Amino acid sequence: MKYDRTYNFSAGPAMMPEPVLEEIQKEVLNYRGSGMSVMEMSHRSKVFQQIIDEAEADLRKLMNIPDNYKVLFIQGGGTLQFAMVPLNLMKNGVACYVETGSWSKKAIAEAKKYGEVKIVASSKDENFTYVPDCSNLDIPDNADYVYICENETINGTTFFNLPNTKGHVLVSDQSSMFLSRPCDVSKYGLIWAGVQKNVGPAGMAVVIIREDLIREDIDPKCPTYLSYKTHADSASLYNTPNCWAIYCCGKVFKYLMNIGGLTAIEKINQEKAKVLYDYLDSSKLFKGSVRKEDRSLMNVPFVTGSDEMDAKFVAASKEAGFDNLKGHKSVGGLRASIYNAMPKDGVEALVEFLKKFEKENA
Amino acid sequence: MKYDRTYNFSAGPAMMPEPVLEEIQKEVLNYRGSGMSVMEMSHRSKVFQQIIDEAEADLRKLMNIPDNYKVLFIQGGGTLQFAMVPLNLMKNGVACYVETGSWSKKAIAEAKKYGEVKIVASSKDENFTYVPDCSNLDIPDNADYVYICENETINGTTFFNLPNTKGHVLVSDQSSMFLSRPCDVSKYGLIWAGVQKNVGPAGMAVVIIREDLIREDIDPKCPTYLSYKTHADSASLYNTPNCWAIYCCGKVFKYLMNIGGLTAIEKINQEKAKVLYDYLDSSKLFKGSVRKEDRSLMNVPFVTGSDEMDAKFVAASKEAGFDNLKGHKSVGGLRASIYNAMPKDGVEALVEFLKKFEKENA
Repeated sequence: MKYDRTYNFSAGPAMMPEPVLEEIQKEVLNYRGSGMSVMEMSHRSKVFQQIIDEAEADLRKLMNIPDNYKVLFIQGGGTLQFAMVPLNLMKNGVACYVETGSWSKKAIAEAKKYGEVKIVASSKDENFTYVPDCSNLDIPDNADYVYICENETINGTTFFNLPNTKGHVLVSDQSSMFLSRPCDVSKYGLIWAGVQKNVGPAGMAVVIIREDLIREDIDPKCPTYLSYKTHADSASLYNTPNCWAIYCCGKVFKYLMNIGGLTAIEKINQEKAKVLYDYLDSSKLFKGSVRKEDRSLMNVPFVTGSDEMDAKFVAASKEAGFDNLKGHKSVGGLRASIYNAMPKDGVEALVEFLKKFEKENA
Repeated sequence: MKYDRTYNFSAGPAMMPEPVLEEIQKEVLNYRGSGMSVMEMSHRSKVFQQIIDEAEADLRKLMNIPDNYKVLFIQGGGTLQFAMVPLNLMKNGVACYVETGSWSKKAIAEAKKYGEVKIVASSKDENFTYVPDCSNLDIPDNADYVYICENETINGTTFFNLPNTKGHVLVSDQSSMFLSRPCDVSKYGLIWAGVQKNVGPAGMAVVIIREDLIREDIDPKCPTYLSYKTHADSASLYNTPNCWAIYCCGKVFKYLMNIGGLTAIEKINQEKAKVLYDYLDSSKLFKGSVRKEDRSLMNVPFVTGSDEMDAKFVAASKEAGFDNLKGHKSVGGLRASIYNAMPKDGVEALVEFLKKFEKENA
């Protein structure tokens, strides 16, 4: 690769498009004649207002976000969203969660602080290697929302069909699949995504929320920063936001529009993932961990079946210039995260390396 | 200036040292042979661990932070700290606040959500243009802490003497003066600072907290992200932090160490501020707003006494290449923020321009 860059299979923060990084590099000391870096700009300045306005407008175009949804840029990552969702959306104090792995479990644990949490479906019985059937969930009438983690980064599963929420509000954590495929926003009440997986630098979540879900009457003890209304009323400028992340994400939004939008990137992602899954399905040494129909196009966990062999592979792959192929410590094994910005070349090179390793260790 | 950069007098985000920006620029596509940008690095990787470890170690050296204090890097800015301080430190539900301007007022409003707030001193009577005498405050025995905003960014005042807390814990918002002068950390229970004013890019606060103040027994409804224990137990890596801000701030810490540390920067700051204050004291048109002995070395509010003349000056200064000299909308007038990274040349050039403007408008 150019600039002596490595193929980085990290689950996040992860690769960003090289043309975006090149643009950023040019503007570090002086953003387009403004005389300053974006890192040095007042968030109340005209020049920054244009950056944030364009970022929001481009995201709206990319995802075709309806006018009755707000787009918010909020610091604090997923951990803060796990609390903000129930703090803001639990009106009756009851919410339904689908338990599909590590990140939905974290969301569930946090939500339990604020009300009754009903787990309406789970794939715990098979170690979170599939997405449970959500076509006929038992949802209480007074449930405030149904929550899913649409792509489980650690476990490598994806919802290809959204749950039937029976008229209840759908909330989705899209962090590790955000902007990886077209999305019908109107089917959701709230989508949130930590940007550090599939978009830009860490330190920000994007929240897309239907306006009627932004409440005035939440618990007055809710910290000001944790109220969606705080951010919605001030167009994400209640306090100084993560200006740098907004700027970088804005560039990625433009990059995606230029290559043809979410339909185009979905096709690329399908092709990329196929290269890897086809090999795993044919391999005698490596095996994908997830049920075929629920396989994530972004995070591909796989195993050799032997901890020693897994470790040997991690060491050998690192040596060969492939980075971050170790599985998450909570599940072990191996994992390749192949987000939007991972070039197909990278996946092909990985498969070549897997083949070579398999041959040498037959 | 090199790179056609402007003198940017923004109150924050604000100027960063040019040598730091130059280093950052070089590393955008490939950080020191790692094959990736810092924006693309797993926060669990060895290469990032070294970045965060060095940043913390350098800050500890710079401020001579005692071993029984934790250094935390937390997203969410001042708005989140306004809530985190009372949520974590109010054990008896009583806290004392010194009211010196816009930012202490915000802190007070948020703290009132969580317990009894006693305003033990205020400069409201003279529009926050001075720091009240805090040598003999009426502090209830059961007060959990005494809180100050050590430098009021909008009002332009600074504490040159810390309050006599009579043995109670001192909490300080140092955002707009952080690292501008030596600081005896042992006198504080907790110091926090949004980094976007005097250090690096927006999106992070540094919290320096005495270990015995990190509590297990806070309200179980406190969001996980808002517990200092969450961040302390995982050395700021409970979730993905603002890696980019940690990296940039780390570079600024090294830059400050290289120029001689906080004693050296204090001397520079005193000289810089003297240039501007001396002129204001001699001017017949412009006048500093703050009582002499409480004048901030960082934020210098001044007025002509006429809103029209103020507006004329703002337009003329912008035209002449001086940016962000308008006072905060809440107080009006004019303000020059001259943080660590503003070169003395910039202040001298501003004074020349002020003189010229005064002559032309005599």
